[in-house]
Amino acid sequence: MHQPALVTVAVLLFSLTTVYGGNVLVFPLDGSHWVNMKVLIEELHSRGHSITVIRPTTNWYIKEKSPHYSCITIPVSGGGFVEEVFSLFVTRQLQIQREGGGFWSRISLELELVKLFYELHKDLVVMMTMIFEDAELMQSLRDAYYDLVLTDPAIGGGVFLAHRIGLPLVFNVRWTVQGDGHFAIAPSPLSYVPLPGALLTDKMTFQERVINVLFYLFTRFQIAYVIDSNYIPFVHRYFGPDVHYMSLFQAADIWLMRNDFTFEFPRPTMPNVVYMGGFQCKPSKPLPQDMEDFVQKSGDHGVIMMSLGTLVGQLPEDIAEDIAAAFAKLPQRVIWRHTGKRPTSVGNNTLLVDWLPQNDLLGHPKTRAFVAHGGTNGVQEAIYHGVPIVGLPLVFDQHDNLNRMRSKGVAKIVDIATVDRDIFLEAVKAVLYEPSYRENMQRLSRLHRDQPMKPLDRAMFWIEFVMRNKGAAHLRTESYKMSWFTYHSVDVVAMLLAIVLLIMLVIILAVRFLWRKVFCRRKVKHE
Amino acid sequence: MHQPALVTVAVLLFSLTTVYGGNVLVFPLDGSHWVNMKVLIEELHSRGHSITVIRPTTNWYIKEKSPHYSCITIPVSGGGFVEEVFSLFVTRQLQIQREGGGFWSRISLELELVKLFYELHKDLVVMMTMIFEDAELMQSLRDAYYDLVLTDPAIGGGVFLAHRIGLPLVFNVRWTVQGDGHFAIAPSPLSYVPLPGALLTDKMTFQERVINVLFYLFTRFQIAYVIDSNYIPFVHRYFGPDVHYMSLFQAADIWLMRNDFTFEFPRPTMPNVVYMGGFQCKPSKPLPQDMEDFVQKSGDHGVIMMSLGTLVGQLPEDIAEDIAAAFAKLPQRVIWRHTGKRPTSVGNNTLLVDWLPQNDLLGHPKTRAFVAHGGTNGVQEAIYHGVPIVGLPLVFDQHDNLNRMRSKGVAKIVDIATVDRDIFLEAVKAVLYEPSYRENMQRLSRLHRDQPMKPLDRAMFWIEFVMRNKGAAHLRTESYKMSWFTYHSVDVVAMLLAIVLLIMLVIILAVRFLWRKVFCRRKVKHE
Repeated sequence: MHQPALVTVAVLLFSLTTVYGGNVLVFPLDGSHWVNMKVLIEELHSRGHSITVIRPTTNWYIKEKSPHYSCITIPVSGGGFVEEVFSLFVTRQLQIQREGGGFWSRISLELELVKLFYELHKDLVVMMTMIFEDAELMQSLRDAYYDLVLTDPAIGGGVFLAHRIGLPLVFNVRWTVQGDGHFAIAPSPLSYVPLPGALLTDKMTFQERVINVLFYLFTRFQIAYVIDSNYIPFVHRYFGPDVHYMSLFQAADIWLMRNDFTFEFPRPTMPNVVYMGGFQCKPSKPLPQDMEDFVQKSGDHGVIMMSLGTLVGQLPEDIAEDIAAAFAKLPQRVIWRHTGKRPTSVGNNTLLVDWLPQNDLLGHPKTRAFVAHGGTNGVQEAIYHGVPIVGLPLVFDQHDNLNRMRSKGVAKIVDIATVDRDIFLEAVKAVLYEPSYRENMQRLSRLHRDQPMKPLDRAMFWIEFVMRNKGAAHLRTESYKMSWFTYHSVDVVAMLLAIVLLIMLVIILAVRFLWRKVFCRRKVKHE
Repeated sequence: MHQPALVTVAVLLFSLTTVYGGNVLVFPLDGSHWVNMKVLIEELHSRGHSITVIRPTTNWYIKEKSPHYSCITIPVSGGGFVEEVFSLFVTRQLQIQREGGGFWSRISLELELVKLFYELHKDLVVMMTMIFEDAELMQSLRDAYYDLVLTDPAIGGGVFLAHRIGLPLVFNVRWTVQGDGHFAIAPSPLSYVPLPGALLTDKMTFQERVINVLFYLFTRFQIAYVIDSNYIPFVHRYFGPDVHYMSLFQAADIWLMRNDFTFEFPRPTMPNVVYMGGFQCKPSKPLPQDMEDFVQKSGDHGVIMMSLGTLVGQLPEDIAEDIAAAFAKLPQRVIWRHTGKRPTSVGNNTLLVDWLPQNDLLGHPKTRAFVAHGGTNGVQEAIYHGVPIVGLPLVFDQHDNLNRMRSKGVAKIVDIATVDRDIFLEAVKAVLYEPSYRENMQRLSRLHRDQPMKPLDRAMFWIEFVMRNKGAAHLRTESYKMSWFTYHSVDVVAMLLAIVLLIMLVIILAVRFLWRKVFCRRKVKHE
């Protein structure tokens, strides 16, 4: 009779854990995705939760020592997202783009991306197999009584782990193995929901809708190539032959979407999608004194800031020269994060720096425009602070992000394939001197801030909700368990149509039968 | 040059208005819908907004004098929702149900409802025509500079008015002219989104999915009969021949949905849908002393409360007798809101009252079960206080509401067609003594309360959001402007299929041509 008492004590201890601080297992993705995940981890830590991060030995950004989390390091390489692979990829992307624009160039870029993702997922499966086969590690993960797995579902590691251990699952998500996270969970009518990469808006012409459907088909191919080939054998091995890997993804409890509707076009969503776009944004702090002095000297003209993100230093030299020459012609002052060779045409008004306090500069009242590559984080910080954008998109989702901003009238895009000093100068001048860019961005900023709760607080609420309630089953449809023809009622419609046709057939036969009877009798009479 | 200054002053005054208190035009629906609307109006009033309510002379609940709002009274009858019409309707509904259950009885009930709605919308069009033709009234409405129209879109009055004056539009909604509000705005796959009235859940067998599709077709007929016939001529007259009335509805800025996912099954939604289910719920206050004494004497057995809502006093006498006799057999005490003839079989444990403080009784720690008709308000209060339900559904959405509660394991339903004292007693005993009912309801209650914001505060935030931002365009898709074949990409798919078929045809013809050429040559050679 001692067992139940023990269980009660265990349950009590367990509830105490979730009240006084949860226990979170994080399976992150390296690179810029980690920058986002770290924001959540640090906030969770500050709220008294303890965090364990799973990382490969060969990694890029994810440090082993941190005051905010402890690590479980798996002795494998980190896949496509290590620095060298990434550098090579970016260089190759720039090369393709500079060789010429157009449809085929875009397809070619997409194919390069698919190849990168293929490698990434292949390496992941190696890592996951190593984890699953390590009985001791798996037992220690089970014994740690985590409350949930927090993961970035651009790769499947966290999903597999959560299901294997039997834990609730929270996504920190923008991209999944199915492209934009929404496509994996919410109905997405292709008539007004543009596919990522298609560079369309929510208002499309017939031709654009055709392109959107073609991009959708391309995504299906991408899933088949990248995911099916890598994940199917793995899932069948560890979860059984009847399990479809997609249903493991779609069973996540909460999707914390790094997005909101100042960024995204309005579209269908689901009850367990929580929008936390801009969760990393915060009010600006004062600048370092020398930078503040430089900024103040800009007078009424104000300052332009340029940064292509922390990942890209490889801007081709001739473009850097053109940009520097264009900046030199402006009355504004320019602060430019530039790590390559110093262009010869840099003007007196331009300060080249290795690093800049991006958030503090964006929030500075003298900042007039942001020359950016269009990474999600930078775009969301620009929205938060209301600074219009001159976009120079390079890789990944940057074209797509900037296209959204252009369609909202808050950004001007220059194409790396065609840009020269005149084109660049024109674009910067437009954003500086046509008032609509700044006005639209200020309006977007007001809308973004006009929410009942700060995005980061909302994210925390729902992570802790999952801890308190051991999931969020009541917000999650299980429709993903249906086959596609059941989901779309194809079987029902087919049956109803068959019945209607059958009834029509019977009526036609009956009428013909009666008709003949009457007609034949008459014939007989006539004879 | 004075004009711009004047405009500035006007704009300034206008912004001051929205800061210090908005100006809201309310177009309500009478009956229980008004009970909900009043909650919003009183809260808006307490926040310093001024409210104007449009009402017909002949009405039911909407009083002309109120400290919370002023009235514009239109000299017409209030349509189907006046008390006499409603009483007749309820009596007729009970009669049909008692004559026997089954599919045809349900269809018959639905048809009665359709007739009632037809009359309601017909009367509304008369009222709206009167308003639109009254140039002086229309001018005064324009001159009042309302910030928005708040309306219950179960009828179209507020929608028409908002578009006519050019004002943002906020819905306080559960039902629309298209049935459940979701069906008018969000994708609703029929494979897991049950139609109201079909009494299904989100997990359906093939047969149930067939029923669901049939109910959908029935809804389409209902729309055609009730709405098209009444609204189309009106819309064409006042908004132009190209305007479809549905696009007026679907253009609403914010949909405050009287629902949440402790009540509703998980399903797709839209960014401008705000869930405020349970917004009318509040902590219980102490009971009147005599009632408290009665309750306390129940000891550990606790209390059962019964109320069929404020609208139904017409419970047939024999059923009332059976219920009273069943109650008499229980050790619990019973508080029963009963306005008809006192049943002879009332036991000593039962207190009949004309009125009861429903919220305070539901929140009382001694309350063990709630015998209810299943109106949305009562069900949501039961969820809020965690009290399991014995359901006796009569009309409207009550069957549907209770069916949802049954599927969540928090309610037992008795059918008015077959109920007798034994069946009723069994149902009450089950809810009292099978722990799952109470446990499930307590869990549902915890989930309902575990939200980042109180539902009423959330509703207020979004109403004031619309005031501040003159709408919520960034949350609202304009996909409703597309035709159905564009929306579902039928044209694109047809074109792509045609191209594929054409290519196949060309290939087949080419192969055949070549084949014949080769074959014929050989033939020639052979000869």
